[in-house]
Amino acid sequence: MKIAIAGAGALGSRFGFMLQQAGNDVTLIDGWKDHVEAIRRNGLNVTINDKTFNVKIPTKYPSEVTADMKMDLIIVFTKSMQLDDMLQNIQAIITDQTSILCLLNGIGHEDIIEKYASKQNIFLGNTMWTASLVGPGHTQSFGDGSISLQNLVDGHASEAKYLAACLSEAGLNAEYTDNIHYSIYRKACVNGTMNGLCTLLDADMAAVGATRMAHKIVTTIVNEFAAVAKHENIDLDTNEIIEHVESCYDPKTIGHHYPSMHQDLIKNHRYTEIDYINGAISRKGQKYGIATPYCDFLTELIHCKEDIVLKNDPVIN
Amino acid sequence: MKIAIAGAGALGSRFGFMLQQAGNDVTLIDGWKDHVEAIRRNGLNVTINDKTFNVKIPTKYPSEVTADMKMDLIIVFTKSMQLDDMLQNIQAIITDQTSILCLLNGIGHEDIIEKYASKQNIFLGNTMWTASLVGPGHTQSFGDGSISLQNLVDGHASEAKYLAACLSEAGLNAEYTDNIHYSIYRKACVNGTMNGLCTLLDADMAAVGATRMAHKIVTTIVNEFAAVAKHENIDLDTNEIIEHVESCYDPKTIGHHYPSMHQDLIKNHRYTEIDYINGAISRKGQKYGIATPYCDFLTELIHCKEDIVLKNDPVIN
Repeated sequence: MKIAIAGAGALGSRFGFMLQQAGNDVTLIDGWKDHVEAIRRNGLNVTINDKTFNVKIPTKYPSEVTADMKMDLIIVFTKSMQLDDMLQNIQAIITDQTSILCLLNGIGHEDIIEKYASKQNIFLGNTMWTASLVGPGHTQSFGDGSISLQNLVDGHASEAKYLAACLSEAGLNAEYTDNIHYSIYRKACVNGTMNGLCTLLDADMAAVGATRMAHKIVTTIVNEFAAVAKHENIDLDTNEIIEHVESCYDPKTIGHHYPSMHQDLIKNHRYTEIDYINGAISRKGQKYGIATPYCDFLTELIHCKEDIVLKNDPVIN
Repeated sequence: MKIAIAGAGALGSRFGFMLQQAGNDVTLIDGWKDHVEAIRRNGLNVTINDKTFNVKIPTKYPSEVTADMKMDLIIVFTKSMQLDDMLQNIQAIITDQTSILCLLNGIGHEDIIEKYASKQNIFLGNTMWTASLVGPGHTQSFGDGSISLQNLVDGHASEAKYLAACLSEAGLNAEYTDNIHYSIYRKACVNGTMNGLCTLLDADMAAVGATRMAHKIVTTIVNEFAAVAKHENIDLDTNEIIEHVESCYDPKTIGHHYPSMHQDLIKNHRYTEIDYINGAISRKGQKYGIATPYCDFLTELIHCKEDIVLKNDPVIN
């Protein structure tokens, strides 16, 4: 299959590597100069557990894609706020036959993708794979993960199943689900609590979880997500989800981990994805007439923190 | 007049000094050992603008007060969370003839004072004087200030006016008002926005004011204060108060100042007064059936930050 990874950061690069190893014709597309140039010069380095691979893999800037590169599948894996620009730049390679699989964290990305592709070609997914960048051109990851995915509109389950099979053939443990919106909301509840709170409080998940107020705050935020989801006929099991969020506190597993938003803003001085997590719930709440004050305030506070951090310090890569 | 200053920190010490200079019989009462011992050993040092005074002034621990020290006036000036303990410890010097003037920041302190004194002897005040401690036994301040005060219950305005006159005789610019609850709410709106936000965001008032979201957040919080105040028949002029809050951002005046809560928690690793500012609005809101989600969440976030900061580091004096 001819596959483009649009947004080839840590996880996108890893997926590209695995899909190429399985025999697909893979192109990475990314806008980060140091990363693209490193891959072009030295190949892509992929460390999985203790083993490092070095592979040649075609890597393009979004501005370099041309109509003749038409793709069977584009996996979009940008930061949320880069999605629209990325799709606009690579429009030429999106045809009527191109499937688009969205694996971004957060809520409501399909609204953006629909501007560039017909709904029937859009697939939404959720991944439990993780990876981090050692530096430009070098992605690192530990352990295994999985993907669940579904067609956006009814009547295209067979294409979704076919996609899942292709990804699984590359070792990505992909599975068709008939309930992707539930999974996306469930994951967004983790991001919508841990990301904002750890960033604002400059603390890891175990430290946030150990505070007197963590349970009350998590409960309130998850209930706001649930009220919005309910309006879309998705009935979140809030008790199970709160328990799932609180399992992140465990210092013996991932409790001492800082969520990606903390890394983005506090460590790397980049804007956050808050508008696509809590901010998305706020916008939907406003549209549906549902009050979401904790999501509103958390979104606003993270924007304050962005302004304060980014005003004093330039972006660090 | 026989006057006790219950809670003789930076501002309490300064008031004690000024009242003593005016000929009153003043006793300082405080629980901080280094401070009390320094004053006993070396006298109280008071720096006002560029001039430093050194005076002998009787200074007691709360546990040392005895019934024969009966006071005409007790000015309470503790941290909010110390008020109850302080009054319990100094009960012996509170008689039917003792006026109690509360100058604490925050909302609802009269509920605590009423446990130890009859309502007719309670006076509520609001001060614009400021001071800081150079170290134990040494208070420093710049510029002038004022006090406005009122009797808690009707029919005692003449006593309030007499008290104001006594304080003014000592240079404290005190004035009787018939609207102290309004002034207390108005000041609490400044503390209820700047204190929590600057502490949470670890930024000065100018930096918070320069963020995209400051106006929206300040407006929402002031409106919550106003809804609660309205239930108590106090009609806050929210536009004027929001403008008043936003005047704090000015870097040419006090914009580069960190509010006291930031000093308490971030600099000195002490618990904050949030429960007596936004937390008081939350409790009143709950009692009156008024939603106050921004005050709720801000109070909870500050408690999280307390737990995180104080867990790792012992209290610094």
